[in-house]
Amino acid sequence: MNGKGKQLIIQEVGPRDGLQNEAVFVPTSEKVAFVDQLSACGFKKIEVTSFTSPRAIPALKDAAEVMQQIRRYPGVTYCALVPNVKGTERALEAQTDEVNFVMSASHSHNLENLGMTREDSLKQLGDITRALEGTDCQLSVSLSTVFGCAMEGPVASAEVERLVEQLVQLGVQQISLCDTAGMAHPAQVTALGRLFLQTWPEIAFTMHFHDTRGMGLANVLAALQVGVRRFDASVGGLGGCPYSPGASGNICTEDLVHMLNLMGYDTGIDLEQLLQVARSLPELIDRQPPGYLIKAGPV
Amino acid sequence: MNGKGKQLIIQEVGPRDGLQNEAVFVPTSEKVAFVDQLSACGFKKIEVTSFTSPRAIPALKDAAEVMQQIRRYPGVTYCALVPNVKGTERALEAQTDEVNFVMSASHSHNLENLGMTREDSLKQLGDITRALEGTDCQLSVSLSTVFGCAMEGPVASAEVERLVEQLVQLGVQQISLCDTAGMAHPAQVTALGRLFLQTWPEIAFTMHFHDTRGMGLANVLAALQVGVRRFDASVGGLGGCPYSPGASGNICTEDLVHMLNLMGYDTGIDLEQLLQVARSLPELIDRQPPGYLIKAGPV
Repeated sequence: MNGKGKQLIIQEVGPRDGLQNEAVFVPTSEKVAFVDQLSACGFKKIEVTSFTSPRAIPALKDAAEVMQQIRRYPGVTYCALVPNVKGTERALEAQTDEVNFVMSASHSHNLENLGMTREDSLKQLGDITRALEGTDCQLSVSLSTVFGCAMEGPVASAEVERLVEQLVQLGVQQISLCDTAGMAHPAQVTALGRLFLQTWPEIAFTMHFHDTRGMGLANVLAALQVGVRRFDASVGGLGGCPYSPGASGNICTEDLVHMLNLMGYDTGIDLEQLLQVARSLPELIDRQPPGYLIKAGPV
Repeated sequence: MNGKGKQLIIQEVGPRDGLQNEAVFVPTSEKVAFVDQLSACGFKKIEVTSFTSPRAIPALKDAAEVMQQIRRYPGVTYCALVPNVKGTERALEAQTDEVNFVMSASHSHNLENLGMTREDSLKQLGDITRALEGTDCQLSVSLSTVFGCAMEGPVASAEVERLVEQLVQLGVQQISLCDTAGMAHPAQVTALGRLFLQTWPEIAFTMHFHDTRGMGLANVLAALQVGVRRFDASVGGLGGCPYSPGASGNICTEDLVHMLNLMGYDTGIDLEQLLQVARSLPELIDRQPPGYLIKAGPV
């Protein structure tokens, strides 16, 4: 398993998936500085914020201000999560490069997390594609609970396939398969990854793993082996619930990049610069993030 | 990557590799109870203690008492680490089933950790094989720093091959390849694992990973794919240095077993019972161990 200079795309989601879970409200100017520091590390895509209801996610209530104040590095796509048309309109006003529409593979999680059925989410997505017509804003979709649902347990792959087919019919070309609850394991990643990449070779699939049960980087390895080339990750491993001390969040970007570098892959990311950002996280979020490299240092 | 009922052997090293690193001295009776609880989980081999100088490792100065007081479950091999003949003689007196001789692949680590050159270690090993003649005690060897040395950096695989060949010539049939400093990465594990398994198909190789940089379970996955079937692991992920808060130690047994179960492998270990032992670790060592499953629970 040797990367031999193969290019991979690592998408940083810490400012969104990470900060939305923190107990402290990070001031707007610090969020902007955080994204600017990440931009300098060489990412091709950064998920900056989420245009959701400020009541649902107060930590990101300053989404528009952050998106408007960040420095735009050439070649970097600045995207934002949106759950509906209203969020998309706010994202467009704030000059967002790409909206990342979120819905769940499981009924219960869609209802709990987004307050609507999956059918209503798909209707919102239809409206969003029309809202984006004639704009420069790109579209991607993050499909939650693909590898299991904390409420429903296992999610049938036929159900995920049916939803992906509906997304493809709506013109979606970028899809993130999200392990929202950290339930994915390598054998499952191999099977599902192979299925999706073979069925829809024209779609750019991203794998979005959480490291809740320690399998995050093993899942990345399994995904690489079936040809996945895009991964979401969060600097410091942010994204864990602050009310579960020690529980881990998204896979940690610098730990991921470090492993991929050692294996010979080319991510285009400056690990030393990224580590500096990671080491400064306690100033931002008032806690030690769960990543390994900030404690042990690189090999 | 599907385990489909394939049998794996997970060797528990927590009572030795774990406890030797803890700041607190765990009383003998609690060590004995700890090993007895692990015996009930279904392990085929448990590394109980280390017969080293009490000055070098005061945490395990009660090695003989522990080995003599543990309950012997049928079918479980109770082994102990030894660095020399003297330790082997103490281990034999205490009715140890197997001595696990330790030496390093790198010169500097052998000198620092064992106070002698690798050549002297090999002489000790020769004496040990003679001391074991006519006894029921088995022999295994743990080769440290195979995947990198904290002092020397990369360790040439030709050097490791040379040492393994010398071990084989001395009659050794079980060898643990140890990632002492947590420097191994999956591409390296694939390459070295394939090399060793193909060169010495008659040797039972164990992989011994530390999770210092988060790559532990990814390395297991790489090792499985080249045919490795034996792994060392430590309940709770014990083994980290207590002076580096949050830094991780050996790969965590219950996290490993959980992943392997999900993938369909058969380890023969009762995960629920093992989790009970892991959850009681804070009473034993006065700190929260780094494992994931004790926080997040199994899938």
